[in-house]
Amino acid sequence: MRISVLATRTEVSVGTIKFYLREGLLPPGRQTSRTTAEYDESHVERIRLVRALTDAGGLGIAAVRRIIAVIDAPDPQRLDVLATAQDALTGRVDPEPDDSAASVGRAHSWVAARGWPTGPGDRVVERLERAWEACEQAGVHVEDSMMDDYADAVEQVARVDVAAVPPGADDAVRRVVVGTVMLEPVLSALRLLAQRAISVQG
Amino acid sequence: MRISVLATRTEVSVGTIKFYLREGLLPPGRQTSRTTAEYDESHVERIRLVRALTDAGGLGIAAVRRIIAVIDAPDPQRLDVLATAQDALTGRVDPEPDDSAASVGRAHSWVAARGWPTGPGDRVVERLERAWEACEQAGVHVEDSMMDDYADAVEQVARVDVAAVPPGADDAVRRVVVGTVMLEPVLSALRLLAQRAISVQG
Repeated sequence: MRISVLATRTEVSVGTIKFYLREGLLPPGRQTSRTTAEYDESHVERIRLVRALTDAGGLGIAAVRRIIAVIDAPDPQRLDVLATAQDALTGRVDPEPDDSAASVGRAHSWVAARGWPTGPGDRVVERLERAWEACEQAGVHVEDSMMDDYADAVEQVARVDVAAVPPGADDAVRRVVVGTVMLEPVLSALRLLAQRAISVQG
Repeated sequence: MRISVLATRTEVSVGTIKFYLREGLLPPGRQTSRTTAEYDESHVERIRLVRALTDAGGLGIAAVRRIIAVIDAPDPQRLDVLATAQDALTGRVDPEPDDSAASVGRAHSWVAARGWPTGPGDRVVERLERAWEACEQAGVHVEDSMMDDYADAVEQVARVDVAAVPPGADDAVRRVVVGTVMLEPVLSALRLLAQRAISVQG
């Protein structure tokens, strides 16, 4: 299909599609003349993914580019899928690693005590460290035992996440990365609804 | 303490403190002369809260103002705490209610089938509706049964949330509103760690 048809199909303007092409978020179409190119269903799907990540996912262009690079990487190793996905995701929101942060902070000790796999310079643990510290600053005190209660609950969420990962490596990367980002607002809405349901019960 | 001391204590510039005062995020100090005012520990605590909400919580000034209005409201009714908190929180991120959205969408049916309390024009359910739809658009298919699995897990999260609400009404509002916002990044980091832990287990 021509770029104008692609624009109609996806409800995204031709100008925006050209921007995605320039930014490398969308692979080029098949050139049919010096000025025209043909696009196919894979372009429709990719544009929908980019829109979902930027609109509902709230990601910036750089983050979307990183996620797409993970998805498009040739033949990713099955075992690396999760690590790659997590790197792309923590890279998206985290500032430069903060050298001043104690690397043996509260979150590190807590994760180690829980027996969850971790290592030096673990960016996800550093993220937990900052988020936990921010709670305390805001006057929301979270004891270690309460963090364990949350962790028990979130392990159940993660079981659902992991069970949904399809067997093929390509699909797996896509599902883990996109699912982790896109399901955040779903889980956030569920939490408000569940808080309400539980309060009503008594 | 003088405003300069308040700035040192909170590591926030005098200019920013004046901005918070103008924006109504910080109550005025006790005027001691035409040009100077005295501030106390409540101002230190309030500035830390504002910083936590804007920095780690990622909220804009308007959202912080709404949350502070809920916290400062005189004698909030105990039973209204959760509703008020949820209104402040969904108001913060949601656009104007979209009249074009079908009010009997998939999320509405699912919430009703689950037996969770809801009503017409429920903003939290509308939020779930949009987030679920965005997942589908991004190619992340979430069946009703999978949503139930997530809901079972998130109910456990909400039980921890609700158990942490202190008995006093003032503290309750603060805890629910601030806790719901500030714990989001904590839960998000826990999810990545738990995904990893579960994948390693096999």
